[in-house]
Amino acid sequence: MTKPQKKQQQQQGKKPKTAIIPTREEDFPEWYQQVIKAADMAENSPVRGCMIIKPYGYALWENIQRNFDDIIKDLGVQNAYFPLLIPLEFMSREAEHVDGFATECAVVTHHRLEKGDDGKLIPAESAKLEEPYIIRPTSETIIGDSMSRWVQSYRDLPMKLNQWCNVMRWEMRTRMFLRTSEFLWQEGHNAFEDGEGSHEDAMKMAHAYADFAEEYLAMPMLRGEKTADERFPGAIATYTMEAMMQDGKALQAGTSHDMGQNFAKSFGVKFQGRDEKESFAHTTSWGISTRLIGGMIMMHADDDGMIMPPKVAPIQVQIIPITKDDNKEALLKYCTAFKKSLKSIGVRADVDARDLRNPDKMWGAVKKGIPLRVEIGGREMEEGVLTHVRRDIGKDSKATVSQEDFVATVHGILNDIQSTLFEKAKAFRDENLRDVSSIEEIDAFYKDGNVGFVKTDVSILQNPAFAKLKDTYKLTSRLMPFDDKGTKVVIGKAY
Amino acid sequence: MTKPQKKQQQQQGKKPKTAIIPTREEDFPEWYQQVIKAADMAENSPVRGCMIIKPYGYALWENIQRNFDDIIKDLGVQNAYFPLLIPLEFMSREAEHVDGFATECAVVTHHRLEKGDDGKLIPAESAKLEEPYIIRPTSETIIGDSMSRWVQSYRDLPMKLNQWCNVMRWEMRTRMFLRTSEFLWQEGHNAFEDGEGSHEDAMKMAHAYADFAEEYLAMPMLRGEKTADERFPGAIATYTMEAMMQDGKALQAGTSHDMGQNFAKSFGVKFQGRDEKESFAHTTSWGISTRLIGGMIMMHADDDGMIMPPKVAPIQVQIIPITKDDNKEALLKYCTAFKKSLKSIGVRADVDARDLRNPDKMWGAVKKGIPLRVEIGGREMEEGVLTHVRRDIGKDSKATVSQEDFVATVHGILNDIQSTLFEKAKAFRDENLRDVSSIEEIDAFYKDGNVGFVKTDVSILQNPAFAKLKDTYKLTSRLMPFDDKGTKVVIGKAY
Repeated sequence: MTKPQKKQQQQQGKKPKTAIIPTREEDFPEWYQQVIKAADMAENSPVRGCMIIKPYGYALWENIQRNFDDIIKDLGVQNAYFPLLIPLEFMSREAEHVDGFATECAVVTHHRLEKGDDGKLIPAESAKLEEPYIIRPTSETIIGDSMSRWVQSYRDLPMKLNQWCNVMRWEMRTRMFLRTSEFLWQEGHNAFEDGEGSHEDAMKMAHAYADFAEEYLAMPMLRGEKTADERFPGAIATYTMEAMMQDGKALQAGTSHDMGQNFAKSFGVKFQGRDEKESFAHTTSWGISTRLIGGMIMMHADDDGMIMPPKVAPIQVQIIPITKDDNKEALLKYCTAFKKSLKSIGVRADVDARDLRNPDKMWGAVKKGIPLRVEIGGREMEEGVLTHVRRDIGKDSKATVSQEDFVATVHGILNDIQSTLFEKAKAFRDENLRDVSSIEEIDAFYKDGNVGFVKTDVSILQNPAFAKLKDTYKLTSRLMPFDDKGTKVVIGKAY
Repeated sequence: MTKPQKKQQQQQGKKPKTAIIPTREEDFPEWYQQVIKAADMAENSPVRGCMIIKPYGYALWENIQRNFDDIIKDLGVQNAYFPLLIPLEFMSREAEHVDGFATECAVVTHHRLEKGDDGKLIPAESAKLEEPYIIRPTSETIIGDSMSRWVQSYRDLPMKLNQWCNVMRWEMRTRMFLRTSEFLWQEGHNAFEDGEGSHEDAMKMAHAYADFAEEYLAMPMLRGEKTADERFPGAIATYTMEAMMQDGKALQAGTSHDMGQNFAKSFGVKFQGRDEKESFAHTTSWGISTRLIGGMIMMHADDDGMIMPPKVAPIQVQIIPITKDDNKEALLKYCTAFKKSLKSIGVRADVDARDLRNPDKMWGAVKKGIPLRVEIGGREMEEGVLTHVRRDIGKDSKATVSQEDFVATVHGILNDIQSTLFEKAKAFRDENLRDVSSIEEIDAFYKDGNVGFVKTDVSILQNPAFAKLKDTYKLTSRLMPFDDKGTKVVIGKAY
């Protein structure tokens, strides 16, 4: 990484004051936690490894969800809801077929509490389940079981099902949004008549994810296929989108899997074909999760806190009335009317009417990453003007304009912020993604303290010298980019 | 109940052919299951007491959710997400304070699976949790715990939080939508400075529910307060909306609770007041669930299947191309274009392009309860006309009109279906709700085979003779209607 922040500090010859302590440069993982806290997006809960998604963080997830839900519905996918609990027998069936089967999950063994000898509640022995259940780590198996009943004929195909839900995997080391024991996601499970159908669908969903991430979340993505080692257990191909975080590490941000007939065989998803013969279906599965929010933070936030891409920002314009004791009521009324006029043109605006000092409100908006801040004081009210500041640029973007001008240009400014965030992240990634052609070059790249990606010939993965390098620098193969037709592999450290 | 169906049969002197077997008259509970099956809304799952909500049923839930979500957001409620698992200690804390505390719940005791001696997966003994968790039966406790950290000053109040999620209660006797071990719901938890705040809020939410049910679900509601015996454990008042099903039984369709300071005391939700003294907050909680869908079925469906109220119907207009071999392609294209023109005026339309016989498509639309069915054949296409039939009226409403006329009137027809469903259900309820003034009258009412509600003076609940009647007819006190200012009580059998 070229460490632009550090350079900037050195040029200015002093340490800039930042709203987030520590800075990215000082301690990236801790900076990440502090950004979440300062933006009031989430916090750790009393339940091991599970977070509470606070209203501001959840509003972001809702915007992600609604926008992507519209996209998949246009692709003919139907939402449904399957049980939270999975019979152990289903997992056994999958375990028989899948080597890399994950066993860390929450197991339900009793269905009643009773008071123990010390008066505390304990699981009642008389209510022990004959067959335990697990909390879904994914609904793959129970949806497969349903499809085995629902798919009878080629007329029932393609069948495209999606579920927005919570899932649980017992994680030992957790980090909010990035890896938590419980998380929210969508899981799509589609079935097709033939291998062409499932291949095309898995590719289509991989691009749908990357298009969505780029357009809505302003997150540039590398698109490609996982190497065989990194495939989802049981899949014949796994497609992925990978993003570079500001510390140069990779985030796997969404995957789609072509399961071929493997999964259909485990769960008996078969149908009578056009040829009147019975065949197993070809299936796909694909998912994105609240992890995307972690990626947005590590890609867009800075040392003053979060920066929200306008398209999914819970609040796009934060109006701050700069009140004095004698004009408070009139100014609030004025700002509320202005908020309504912004809402009427489709802008998510909010007035900060809290009983706080004005600088606290301004810094609050900065830390929450609200794309545009609008300040209106008594004089501005009289003159019909306002002062606005872009979160991504800061005080250099400060401008005072008439209300009418602002209303006429606000969509354009928001669009510009959206594309600026994307271009900035893309420039950072391109700068930190190096084409290399030998083990020595990879070694030199990471030895120098760079933490970006290297791209090289896919054959390097078979080179025994590479195994050692992988261990030394904790490198993983991220993907074989579609653009290079599978001849190249991108390597990096990963979350 | 006046048994209108039976009368109709007798008048016609023959048993009408119905799409659902048995009819409501023959076996109401089984009819209910068959309506769900015929409409393809849900099915039982391999997980005890849990259902699978199929796409058509889930689309209805999504429409309920989106519309009600808009309503609560306008009321200043913010959505958030809290963990699925609840520490046992939280339940103990609640159990100390609440007598009617429910103990039937799913208990998580292990966090890993391993292969047992016979090769099957079993919970790993080495991964037994020191402290078990339960799957949330409600998030009351964990939200209370969060509020105790989030609420510090009167400035933090009111705090209005809502969560859309799955919850689980281990039910012994389950019925799809009405009572399942896992169900989907929203749970709102609001906190206020004083008792006036929580009282007003609980009342406001009770009316918000009933207004929503009446306007969107076409379900007439009785609104009122539960008697002390029927209150939510720990609440100082429980408000409810109660609906009469077609078998005359009551369905509790949504409740809001004024918890006073009881809950805040259990979880330490206190704040520094305007008077600079520390006080406990006054809280409310309020919820509606997928149970509403069961209520819609038992209120609106008939012996030919479901009838969807247009405002929340997944499909409002089902277009059926009456194809022949020689016009199939052209007709499908024509119908698809027509669907688009309906969508452009905000009508949820669908073309049934499946490879099925035309009568099967027509009956499919009937059983799914799609409010309006449009049939277009080759001749209609040439003439630019179509034939439409209302689901609530049936063949007597059949009319052939030009496409333009249909487009111009479709919103009006849908609105008329919506209000007709409401008025019909209301007339049925009013007909089967009797004012009575003595034990003898109640006895006579139910002895006659009536299964509606009786309304009488609230003092009757203290009459010893009433206890016996209650047992005989399985009666419960449903609510004390707001309209009668708490002087009356409505009694009936209930789901």
